[in-house]
Amino acid sequence: MDAGIQQLYHLQSHLIDGGRAAEWAATFTADGTFDSPTYPSPVVGTAALTRFAERFAAGCAADGVVRRHVVTNMAATGTDDDGAVRVEAYLQIVATPRGGAPHIERFTTLADRVVADGEGWRIAARVVRRDDAPGR
Amino acid sequence: MDAGIQQLYHLQSHLIDGGRAAEWAATFTADGTFDSPTYPSPVVGTAALTRFAERFAAGCAADGVVRRHVVTNMAATGTDDDGAVRVEAYLQIVATPRGGAPHIERFTTLADRVVADGEGWRIAARVVRRDDAPGR
Amino acid sequence: MDAGIQQLYHLQSHLIDGGRAAEWAATFTADGTFDSPTYPSPVVGTAALTRFAERFAAGCAADGVVRRHVVTNMAATGTDDDGAVRVEAYLQIVATPRGGAPHIERFTTLADRVVADGEGWRIAARVVRRDDAPGR
Repeated sequence: MDAGIQQLYHLQSHLIDGGRAAEWAATFTADGTFDSPTYPSPVVGTAALTRFAERFAAGCAADGVVRRHVVTNMAATGTDDDGAVRVEAYLQIVATPRGGAPHIERFTTLADRVVADGEGWRIAARVVRRDDAPGR
Repeated sequence: MDAGIQQLYHLQSHLIDGGRAAEWAATFTADGTFDSPTYPSPVVGTAALTRFAERFAAGCAADGVVRRHVVTNMAATGTDDDGAVRVEAYLQIVATPRGGAPHIERFTTLADRVVADGEGWRIAARVVRRDDAPGR
Repeated sequence: MDAGIQQLYHLQSHLIDGGRAAEWAATFTADGTFDSPTYPSPVVGTAALTRFAERFAAGCAADGVVRRHVVTNMAATGTDDDGAVRVEAYLQIVATPRGGAPHIERFTTLADRVVADGEGWRIAARVVRRDDAPGR
């Protein structure tokens, strides 16, 4: 896999987990989509993605919990006709309450389309699936 | 580490976890060996490896559990006289019951010999050790 | 991220977890620093780092527990004026008691300065933060 794509995935978690909502949203294309069964409907575009990340950080603060997006097993599985790279990965949400023990809250898989836009790689579309409830 | 070797490890988990038994078996050489204390004897060769992966998938389905092979810390630790690359890695089995919480079922280490066969990298020999019961 | 830096991180865990204290200490520069809230004061220099890793191994043996340093999400986040690469990563300590189930003991983040010294990459300075108790 292209080292730049790997860096995109590794960095992305630090951004959302560190409360850097606008920078996280900028790891998607301007019309990027984020579709997860954990949330009521797909999140589309920079403004909505930024608000999504802000709500994630606010939720963690309200819960008194530090949550981490642990990404592993990133594999490039093909290239679409338009040049987008298909990437599959595992994503665990690991939560640590203040003063408590960490635990895996959720095991999910990512199926993404990743594109190069001149400045670097960005997520054009992400579909998240949860191992506890496959399918929406 | 060669990016192709890294991709081999990352993809391999998606194959066995996704029930793609023949494709998982093809990540080993035709006479590849898989030796784990979790199973009664080493698994050798494409046909046996395929059946092994089929049984893994059938077991998960029977248990109502999604199991994931989470690979981290892949390190190339040397090269044998025949050109095989020695790779060590950590492998966690994370299980999520339908509607339940994920947990780490097993922490294992991999000690592999990886070879290039013209089409790409393959596992020639894998030895798995379990942290809960080191040695068979 | 430079493949050599990635290999440094991946290998480092195998060294400390495998009780190879001197080799682990050598992944830091001769005056390297390791600063973690889990321990009373920063550890500085090869001799002190070696003793630190020896105590880690002795503690695991005394506890009857195998502990693993699981590193993920390594991201290069900048370069200092002196050429040092800043790296952020997630580090989980996963513990397995003899005959028992693995669990995540601690979720930490690493903020490192990594330098090339002619022979390869080494850690010049590491700051560890714990998710259960941010800040010392």
